[in-house]
Amino acid sequence: MRAQEQGDAGESPLLVRVKIDIAYDGADFSGWAAQPGRRTVAGVLTEGLERVLRLADAPKLTVAGRTDAGVHARGQVAHADLPADAWEKEGPAALRRLARALPHDVRVRSLAPAAAGFDARFSALWRRYSYRVCDDVVHADPLRRNDTLWHPHPLDVDAMNAAAAALLGEHDFAAFCKRRVGATTVRALRRLDWRRDDTGVAVACVVADAFCHSMVRSLVGALLPVGEGARPLSWPGTVLAAIVRDPGVRVAPAHPLCLEEVGYPDASQLAERAAQTRMVRTLGSAVPCT
Amino acid sequence: MRAQEQGDAGESPLLVRVKIDIAYDGADFSGWAAQPGRRTVAGVLTEGLERVLRLADAPKLTVAGRTDAGVHARGQVAHADLPADAWEKEGPAALRRLARALPHDVRVRSLAPAAAGFDARFSALWRRYSYRVCDDVVHADPLRRNDTLWHPHPLDVDAMNAAAAALLGEHDFAAFCKRRVGATTVRALRRLDWRRDDTGVAVACVVADAFCHSMVRSLVGALLPVGEGARPLSWPGTVLAAIVRDPGVRVAPAHPLCLEEVGYPDASQLAERAAQTRMVRTLGSAVPCT
Repeated sequence: MRAQEQGDAGESPLLVRVKIDIAYDGADFSGWAAQPGRRTVAGVLTEGLERVLRLADAPKLTVAGRTDAGVHARGQVAHADLPADAWEKEGPAALRRLARALPHDVRVRSLAPAAAGFDARFSALWRRYSYRVCDDVVHADPLRRNDTLWHPHPLDVDAMNAAAAALLGEHDFAAFCKRRVGATTVRALRRLDWRRDDTGVAVACVVADAFCHSMVRSLVGALLPVGEGARPLSWPGTVLAAIVRDPGVRVAPAHPLCLEEVGYPDASQLAERAAQTRMVRTLGSAVPCT
Repeated sequence: MRAQEQGDAGESPLLVRVKIDIAYDGADFSGWAAQPGRRTVAGVLTEGLERVLRLADAPKLTVAGRTDAGVHARGQVAHADLPADAWEKEGPAALRRLARALPHDVRVRSLAPAAAGFDARFSALWRRYSYRVCDDVVHADPLRRNDTLWHPHPLDVDAMNAAAAALLGEHDFAAFCKRRVGATTVRALRRLDWRRDDTGVAVACVVADAFCHSMVRSLVGALLPVGEGARPLSWPGTVLAAIVRDPGVRVAPAHPLCLEEVGYPDASQLAERAAQTRMVRTLGSAVPCT
């Protein structure tokens, strides 16, 4: 068992930074972030960790992607700085105990000491989301209705992909974001493309360094009208270029959205990446708001 | 529009036999078969068809696989003999109207006049079911918890496949069936094998000409202890050979079970297959009880 004094948490007692991989069904959660009187993923997890690790205080979680109400995750990542003595004693049984202690709509998939320099939020290079849309009743799967949008008009996936190409790269995504005071809306969109999976469902793969609030759902909301032929291919790019929120873009529903994966650099790059991201934040540009 | 007088339904008015492809989430249904005062798939579908086709009477449905309470389907098939005039008038819009009229836990995927000689139950050559088991929290997906068994001990899929081999072929499956008076329990099991899907979940593929009541769940219940090393590879075969129900076999839960597909012969063979199956029933042997 490796106990390390972390840069961020450098007071006694000795702390171990633990990386936590998490999956959840967002339907019955008011999003990730703890809020008094609301059932949130962070709230339920914090309670579970406190109990199975027999901690004196609720651990503080730092997360890679602060998902909204109703949004799911299969690849969420968080970290917590835990007292080394508690971790040494209770850590080995913690994963098994969590599987029993947590409600079945949230699962901790792994729980282990993080590599040196790891920060779930600031070390992350990118976040990958999926968005599922079924547009033909012949492919309708009632077992997936809780994470799939039912869209009663056929979608042209090639048209959506052609339109999405204009959105790739580093841009000010203000047109697709809920603006927050003092936060930039510049993001680097690495991927936004749709394919039919083997059941015929159209699935978007969306990757960026980070996302603004409701950004993926706004991007999807701009592409669906192109897919059904109600807007021209050029429309999403035109919306982007205006840099102001467009009332013509309908934010797509939350339930088909899932955080699939968070990308991190090799262990040797973790600390450098975290320092870099923090510095960018200090300079007030390209802040990852997730 | 092809209106035909069916052999089975040869009285006036002229009837059209319609083939119906159906998917449902079984969680909130008391199984397929209509029961007074219970919400069943057949009950909900019958009502929906009566409404969207504006029929004077509830249509009678004949189904390929009478699934139990809690069991799902993506590939269920039924037929109904409908008045030709109603079908001609309301048929073209029926699929779209059903998508709106039916609750979201049951979907009609297609609805079209059947080939001559088609009988959803008696023309069927085989039924294919899947059964999903997650045995490692690292693969746990809360979004699939409603159709996946959580099994807290690791399963040896190769051991389960080796044990399953002894069950293949035509046997008296009385050891794995709830016996019904006057009904044979001889079945031809064509496939029973497990593989890990791309998310790490162990999925059984089970194919037979037909299944007795609770047969798939009993077969799974006999293989899981082999997979976890609690029973020898030879155990399921020994249970089968005894031809009496074995109290050591725990019937596995219903919610991970899904009817995926029903196999039919080429159109030219449909009537012959139906006649053959009916004859077998009359002779009292190898009755498909689903």
